[in-house]
Amino acid sequence: MSRAVFDDAEYERRLSRTRDRLREEDLDAIVVADPANMNYLTGYDGWSFYVHQAVVVTLEHEEPVWVGRQMDADGARATTTLSEPNIRAYSDDHVHSPHDLHPMDYVAGVLEDLEVADGRIGLEMDAYYFTAKSYTRLQQNLPEAEFEDATLLVGWVRVKKSDQELEYMHQAARISENAMQAGLDAIEAGVPEYEVAAEIYEALITGTDEYGGDYPSIVPLMPSGEHTGTPHLTWTDREFEDGDPVIIELSGCRHRYHSPLARTTFVGEPPAELEHTAEVVVEAVDAALDAAEPGVTCETVEKAWRDTIAKYDIEKEDRIGYSMGLGYPPDWGEHTASIRPGDETVLEENMTFHMIPGIWTEDIGMELSETFRITSSGAETLADFPRKLFRA
Amino acid sequence: MSRAVFDDAEYERRLSRTRDRLREEDLDAIVVADPANMNYLTGYDGWSFYVHQAVVVTLEHEEPVWVGRQMDADGARATTTLSEPNIRAYSDDHVHSPHDLHPMDYVAGVLEDLEVADGRIGLEMDAYYFTAKSYTRLQQNLPEAEFEDATLLVGWVRVKKSDQELEYMHQAARISENAMQAGLDAIEAGVPEYEVAAEIYEALITGTDEYGGDYPSIVPLMPSGEHTGTPHLTWTDREFEDGDPVIIELSGCRHRYHSPLARTTFVGEPPAELEHTAEVVVEAVDAALDAAEPGVTCETVEKAWRDTIAKYDIEKEDRIGYSMGLGYPPDWGEHTASIRPGDETVLEENMTFHMIPGIWTEDIGMELSETFRITSSGAETLADFPRKLFRA
Repeated sequence: MSRAVFDDAEYERRLSRTRDRLREEDLDAIVVADPANMNYLTGYDGWSFYVHQAVVVTLEHEEPVWVGRQMDADGARATTTLSEPNIRAYSDDHVHSPHDLHPMDYVAGVLEDLEVADGRIGLEMDAYYFTAKSYTRLQQNLPEAEFEDATLLVGWVRVKKSDQELEYMHQAARISENAMQAGLDAIEAGVPEYEVAAEIYEALITGTDEYGGDYPSIVPLMPSGEHTGTPHLTWTDREFEDGDPVIIELSGCRHRYHSPLARTTFVGEPPAELEHTAEVVVEAVDAALDAAEPGVTCETVEKAWRDTIAKYDIEKEDRIGYSMGLGYPPDWGEHTASIRPGDETVLEENMTFHMIPGIWTEDIGMELSETFRITSSGAETLADFPRKLFRA
Repeated sequence: MSRAVFDDAEYERRLSRTRDRLREEDLDAIVVADPANMNYLTGYDGWSFYVHQAVVVTLEHEEPVWVGRQMDADGARATTTLSEPNIRAYSDDHVHSPHDLHPMDYVAGVLEDLEVADGRIGLEMDAYYFTAKSYTRLQQNLPEAEFEDATLLVGWVRVKKSDQELEYMHQAARISENAMQAGLDAIEAGVPEYEVAAEIYEALITGTDEYGGDYPSIVPLMPSGEHTGTPHLTWTDREFEDGDPVIIELSGCRHRYHSPLARTTFVGEPPAELEHTAEVVVEAVDAALDAAEPGVTCETVEKAWRDTIAKYDIEKEDRIGYSMGLGYPPDWGEHTASIRPGDETVLEENMTFHMIPGIWTEDIGMELSETFRITSSGAETLADFPRKLFRA
């Protein structure tokens, strides 16, 4: 029984666009190791990326070939519609092997079978889980191959979303709204951070009345108190205190598609300065969203943000967003287009971004984010959640 | 304010043992990129491993040097006791840079500052998050350096746990018990898988009455029905049905230390064959635990399992366990010692393993796991949870 969540035609379109990019780059094949890209091209979905695995796409071989660990082959059968010869599995003695066997030795054999071992092969040189050793083992096994860096090749194919992908992202946005509300409701003085994280997690996985939630690629982040400027610390046993600012960044997830959302709340009476910062952030986010439409560049959207905060004598030149959607831990970003100075990517309908700017004064910060889709004439946010500083 | 969870003396011991290993391997330095190893050597803890980061240890420089993204430097200040000169941060234009800047260019500069750029440098060639590009950029930047594969160097230093590490693992075991009970209580016919996953997650993060739980390095896995043989598929919207076997594998986590636990339950009346399989699994797990003690090899423990199931005419030659403890997604395993044929690692007091064997007949499987510590004379399991086939 296949648990595939897109129809065959969608996978065929993805594969066809990937092959177009291979031809543009004069590549005979690509070895895809990023789990999000593997999923994108085949539907494969499992928590097996802690061992080496790959999807190989060549110009000539009709279907992609999934390569993974023996015990995960049934997972490939369950989540993809690949035919049996295109599910190739290595034995368990390749896993953390004391015998100098490496899964990429097996992948090299697959590339030989596919008759591209002396060709130009794209590798995702900077992708999660494609280690330095994966690379040197392919080199050693395939001395005739010419390897090229193709880290973002599939990423750029992913950048415009299909209707079905957008449907899953909208479903993820409903989950994000529920989880954000659960988090805001739970925060109060005396409550430990982990209890709030537990409430958020329960909401993220329970999802909605109609469907459940998948695990997000990043855990809910909740920097608070003196730590609102350290965005990637995770929760502790500390109890929230009166006077704490708290930033919640989270994402619902549906069939591996995300819709991240960040809001800031304050335990007790917020200082006037933070109230003011909040108004500036909201105005500048509104301005940036207003600037986003097909034909405009990413850096123009960032400039709308920067020009607005400049009116209040705030200077800040950062990346404020990035293209995103499908993802596995540790990230939901696609690593392609960024909303930042110098990024001349031209926006097109159905690109999707997470815009997450913030302003910090001393230790106290205000952060507010929206996931948005480029429409035919502007931008629509996926979640419907008030843009303001909350109070706990 | 430091959130360090071990005292300085413990970090000094870890560092000293790491330097001993460097000398044994004739290395001048090691670039540690595995987030678990970075934590082990410095205490650094944050969800920032989606960008490149490293800890550098040299023979000469007293403290380790943390290298990461500018916005994570405060996280390093909060979670480590490193002195300010040993927290080095690269600017944000290194992140998914369109200008061909790479974080490892910055790391190369740090290695130059530390005067090891022409030395023998260990790299974790097969570690999570140390990509092929990380390697080639270090090579390009440091043509005089001699790089050696040191993937497991810190892993072998980690294999024997300190009293404080064991205390956190015992705390994690309490959380595992609570979460397992929550999962078993929630499973019944008609309940969707995600609802059970949500209950488990809430229990994992809520922890116990005395302390909260950290996020586990692997999500709760819950293969069921026809999929008990596909261990790494995650939950869906499917409702449990009468006649479903369900395997729950999960781990509580405390300050990044784990204590994984797996049990099998059955919705309704289990078939006699599964009851029999369950008895065999329990007997063989008991036998393997009885065999574990200081001085014995890993493969001897596996043989006790295999000899027991052989009495029932079941043949199976697999890895049934691995050394574990500290971890970040995607894994809590240490990738060093494995409980499998051919692994001659000699057990020593305070090594910790997760033993997770299973037996499948056709599509129906029984899995049962224990996390255990080698004591002065045997093995003690960390969790206290009945070893049997459960019924939902």
